[in-house]
Amino acid sequence: MISKKIDHIGIAVHNLKKACETYKALGLKVSKIEAVSDMNVNVAFLPVGDTRFELLEPLHKDSVISKFLEKKGEGVHHICLEVEDIEAASKELMQSGFQVLYPKAKKGAEGAWVNFLHPKSTHGILIEICCKHISPRGHEVAEKVS
Amino acid sequence: MISKKIDHIGIAVHNLKKACETYKALGLKVSKIEAVSDMNVNVAFLPVGDTRFELLEPLHKDSVISKFLEKKGEGVHHICLEVEDIEAASKELMQSGFQVLYPKAKKGAEGAWVNFLHPKSTHGILIEICCKHISPRGHEVAEKVS
Repeated sequence: MISKKIDHIGIAVHNLKKACETYKALGLKVSKIEAVSDMNVNVAFLPVGDTRFELLEPLHKDSVISKFLEKKGEGVHHICLEVEDIEAASKELMQSGFQVLYPKAKKGAEGAWVNFLHPKSTHGILIEICCKHISPRGHEVAEKVS
Repeated sequence: MISKKIDHIGIAVHNLKKACETYKALGLKVSKIEAVSDMNVNVAFLPVGDTRFELLEPLHKDSVISKFLEKKGEGVHHICLEVEDIEAASKELMQSGFQVLYPKAKKGAEGAWVNFLHPKSTHGILIEICCKHISPRGHEVAEKVS
């Protein structure tokens, strides 16, 4: 799998507004705020270099971010590597022994197709892979989360 | 404070060799392996885009990485933002209410001057700031860890 960059570092926070203020005090700027209803989260992106912090606030108690916050508190939730072909990357990673969470990619923030590698197979890091364009094969393999 | 990029994402691992194999299977390459005796760690750098993964293996049971692994297991230990002037950045961050760990910068991996922000003041993330060149004021403010 070839990734040219880390698209973002996802950070679980209780309160998006407060967290944005903290990161602004670090010298960063909010480039975008978006609700991802499929994942029950509000997200804010703060670019730095060729990557971004992605602050994640749960919109609902059943959000995976709510559960993460309950269990571990605020902190890094995942690291996202951008790939060119989500289908090929998922297949290759599965063959390499990584535990790929979804059989088919899902829609994430910014309309990107995403999948995840379980932390048990990556030395404790939930790794997301994302693809921002729909490849010719994308429509066949990806389905929107209901 | 202005940071142009994330210098690296520090990840605590039990076994550097095994972890490097895992990250290589993700498509990354090891650019450098270095022992940082002051911090009792072996580190491996794996670049991606303009940033890097920094895998950290403890060399001694008293290493902060040993303690982190005992308490939390493998995972993200810190995120490092590169700054131009470590002294000015530390002062500014202190004035903004961040809990800066050291009154004076310390020597970290690659001979960089480093300081840290306590996770309590950053929504759960241990943030490192690093400066890779010695500014004219650097010699006055920074001291090597004994």
